[in-house]
Amino acid sequence: MPAKRITIIGTGLIGASIGLALREAGFAGLITGIDRSADELRTALDRGAITHLAQSPEKQRAAVQRADIVVLAVPVLAILQWLEQLAPVIQDGQLVTDAGSTKLNIVETARRLLPGRFLPGHPMAGKESGGAALAEAALFRGATWIFTPDTSPAAVAFSGSSQALTTEWRGWVERFGSKIIDMPADRHDEICAWVSHLPQMLSTALSALLEDTFGDDPDLRAIGGRALREMTRLGSSPFSMWRDIARTNEAPLAHTLLMLEQRLQHLRENLRTPALRDEFTKANNFRRTH
Amino acid sequence: MPAKRITIIGTGLIGASIGLALREAGFAGLITGIDRSADELRTALDRGAITHLAQSPEKQRAAVQRADIVVLAVPVLAILQWLEQLAPVIQDGQLVTDAGSTKLNIVETARRLLPGRFLPGHPMAGKESGGAALAEAALFRGATWIFTPDTSPAAVAFSGSSQALTTEWRGWVERFGSKIIDMPADRHDEICAWVSHLPQMLSTALSALLEDTFGDDPDLRAIGGRALREMTRLGSSPFSMWRDIARTNEAPLAHTLLMLEQRLQHLRENLRTPALRDEFTKANNFRRTH
Repeated sequence: MPAKRITIIGTGLIGASIGLALREAGFAGLITGIDRSADELRTALDRGAITHLAQSPEKQRAAVQRADIVVLAVPVLAILQWLEQLAPVIQDGQLVTDAGSTKLNIVETARRLLPGRFLPGHPMAGKESGGAALAEAALFRGATWIFTPDTSPAAVAFSGSSQALTTEWRGWVERFGSKIIDMPADRHDEICAWVSHLPQMLSTALSALLEDTFGDDPDLRAIGGRALREMTRLGSSPFSMWRDIARTNEAPLAHTLLMLEQRLQHLRENLRTPALRDEFTKANNFRRTH
Repeated sequence: MPAKRITIIGTGLIGASIGLALREAGFAGLITGIDRSADELRTALDRGAITHLAQSPEKQRAAVQRADIVVLAVPVLAILQWLEQLAPVIQDGQLVTDAGSTKLNIVETARRLLPGRFLPGHPMAGKESGGAALAEAALFRGATWIFTPDTSPAAVAFSGSSQALTTEWRGWVERFGSKIIDMPADRHDEICAWVSHLPQMLSTALSALLEDTFGDDPDLRAIGGRALREMTRLGSSPFSMWRDIARTNEAPLAHTLLMLEQRLQHLRENLRTPALRDEFTKANNFRRTH
């Protein structure tokens, strides 16, 4: 029996885009939204990303209990809190999935709290700014959607009738236009540290350093070109989301930062030597293949 | 008397774009091109960026001797070599200007070799790839064009009749659609280290590190999104140009690299502390004002 009710917790950019993508892909059931911001909830409803909203604790509890699939689209620490709240409510035959940016912490928590009823996911999509107002059904088209299913005996043993919903949710994600990749949660977190979290921290550090050094010096504004704009664009990312990522992926992220610090030092010590050419050659090669 | 003959040395992206911009702005005189690559020279001629080309040493010498304005649009170390060659040839009433990426070294060399006959310039424009084939008259439209005139007594004393050509060249640059800023050469080099050279080295270091860590791992390709592409785009920049910049702006660039290394270390040591919020706040502020 295909899902008839989906509850989306967190109707910001990602959650509301999932709602819009579901409807564009032909999901005809109810989509109930939960969000601590009444404005975001109202925007999601107005834009057709959800069909119902649940604001009071009683309505939220009912929306979770009646859902076939619950989608957690809030920052990582909030996902961990929701898992605690969902644990006593979610029954066999229901599925919880998420869109959290880091996965190991979430997988380990869900193994304990929702064994066999949780499908950890991460759509590699987003924008610099959040909010339901910017949501779009096409956000996930062409993007990679990673799943990090828990294959531990504890999780698999309990999977039971939630299994069919797992298959169904993967089908919806494919209909969103995403390319699905499965990998272990620790591998996900390690790769994301390199391709997403390190670039973010780098852009934040560069932007903060320039802010301290130049303030609003007009010369900087006049002279800085595309290179500067591009390398600092991520500097506008909100702390609220990245705090959770930094906390839940601290060791892999710290490792990539240390590696880059050493690389910059190497480059700095070789501004006049042939080693600088080697760095440019490697960088050129990277760009040719990626 | 306005200039009738302009000789452009280096007819790659910048040199050929200057030729096209001159013609679009109404320069009706002769534009002679000099380039060590016969292909680039031919492309520049075919595209109408130059009206004549000078390939033999004799013709090159004549093209320099007869020019009212000589424009050096080659990498910085090649500019320094050309200044040596031009010194015995250039007379009062001729002007040499350039488009080199660093200025202090060039200004000090020109003070000795071409006092009062050299106007140091730097158009803040370019593309990831070079070559006359990509040249366009509009390359400098809306861009900042920095001049770092030598105001030392030695330089000013000799300026004589080259002064009118200085004024004329500034006029052409304005007609290219550029915004002119004047500043001391050392200030130029320091700011460019921050807004151009540091972002470049950062992108090169990140790209090289990822190349060493992942090679052509397909997971990286599948997962890396806009953030990764953007932060590594400059990794495709050619060494040939950046070698000269690294050598002629070594101290300011090394300083910015060291500052960034320390900033990354600070961030790494504070992934769980309130200091991380401060970094994001500063980065957000930077983005709001630049």
